[in-house]
Amino acid sequence: MGKVLGVLGGMGPAATVAFLEQLQALTPAAGDADHIRVIADINPRVPNRNTEPEAAGRELAGMAAALRDAGAQVLAMPCNTAHAHAAAIKEASGLPLIHIIEETARAVHGRGARRPGVLGTGAGRMLHAQRLDAVLLAEADQAAFMDLIGRIKAGDTGAAVRAGMARLAARLVDQGADAVVAGCTEVPLVLGERDLAVPLIDTLQVLAAACVRACR
Amino acid sequence: MGKVLGVLGGMGPAATVAFLEQLQALTPAAGDADHIRVIADINPRVPNRNTEPEAAGRELAGMAAALRDAGAQVLAMPCNTAHAHAAAIKEASGLPLIHIIEETARAVHGRGARRPGVLGTGAGRMLHAQRLDAVLLAEADQAAFMDLIGRIKAGDTGAAVRAGMARLAARLVDQGADAVVAGCTEVPLVLGERDLAVPLIDTLQVLAAACVRACR
Repeated sequence: MGKVLGVLGGMGPAATVAFLEQLQALTPAAGDADHIRVIADINPRVPNRNTEPEAAGRELAGMAAALRDAGAQVLAMPCNTAHAHAAAIKEASGLPLIHIIEETARAVHGRGARRPGVLGTGAGRMLHAQRLDAVLLAEADQAAFMDLIGRIKAGDTGAAVRAGMARLAARLVDQGADAVVAGCTEVPLVLGERDLAVPLIDTLQVLAAACVRACR
Repeated sequence: MGKVLGVLGGMGPAATVAFLEQLQALTPAAGDADHIRVIADINPRVPNRNTEPEAAGRELAGMAAALRDAGAQVLAMPCNTAHAHAAAIKEASGLPLIHIIEETARAVHGRGARRPGVLGTGAGRMLHAQRLDAVLLAEADQAAFMDLIGRIKAGDTGAAVRAGMARLAARLVDQGADAVVAGCTEVPLVLGERDLAVPLIDTLQVLAAACVRACR
């Protein structure tokens, strides 16, 4: 009997659904009953992780405890930036959290990359940069990146947004990146490995694979 | 402030994720915070709704009460067959359940159909047939349908499964159906309106639209 996975979700809602899809796709299953039981709180009103970090932390701690009370045995959170609150989540729930930043660092090394470029929001890319010898976007490009993330969160995953994201990823490669980390869960919604000359590390997929290993 | 939607899911897991996707797609949103908060229990080990109905009913009642305790204010269940247990779910939780069969009947009438064909599993298609003047598959075709559902639940949504489902839907039209109800949440995973000469009523989409109306 596997473990029940609690998902702190909604950051954003589309990324959470993409994560759940990946989780199912990566689970070897001959029928429904082979899948992992997931209790997901898809809460789109977690305060902004970049501009209201303290309020976000309190909300996430409360969600983690509620997921535990609902039966979750292991937690995961398909949002890189929110992992600034990993310690508060673990403390409030007493449960293990499958850590997207740690799992990504492992995946980067596993793919043989030494200088990964990181596409991420303020706190999220800093968490990756603390763990990896990372190539980051220059300020103007980072502003363009945040603009694209806002558009994706508004539901726009069209050609212009895709082209813009591919251009920013290429910029990291020009700066010497030997892999690109999609270090914000909105990125893989518009960027695929075929858009790049180097490996793409999809943090959503990395997290989903780690959850399958932990919960099956 | 909208209402928190509790989702009794996992029947099957892929249908639940497709439902969550529809829910987001149908929600007018300029950013994350405009989406509905959803607490979903994606439980792939609900006992078989067709062969172990009593055990399934007990499990679903327990899930409904737990979703209420976790903060859900309205319930929905993206599985037609499991609606045989609608009364038990409402009684155990004290919450309103947005009823997929009732909402579908309304959608059928709204589309002007009078003799809808219903593709569904044993209990699910019976629930629709009680509510509608329905065209149903003959026994041999129904067996072929159940076989296709099993293949979808095992992850096969390939060309052969799609062609098989389109063939069964066409059979209903040959028998006089003026619309086809995808009365099992696995059906829309492999059948689209373009596969048919008559309107397709997607019960997953109908349920998602009703949830958006109820919770926004």
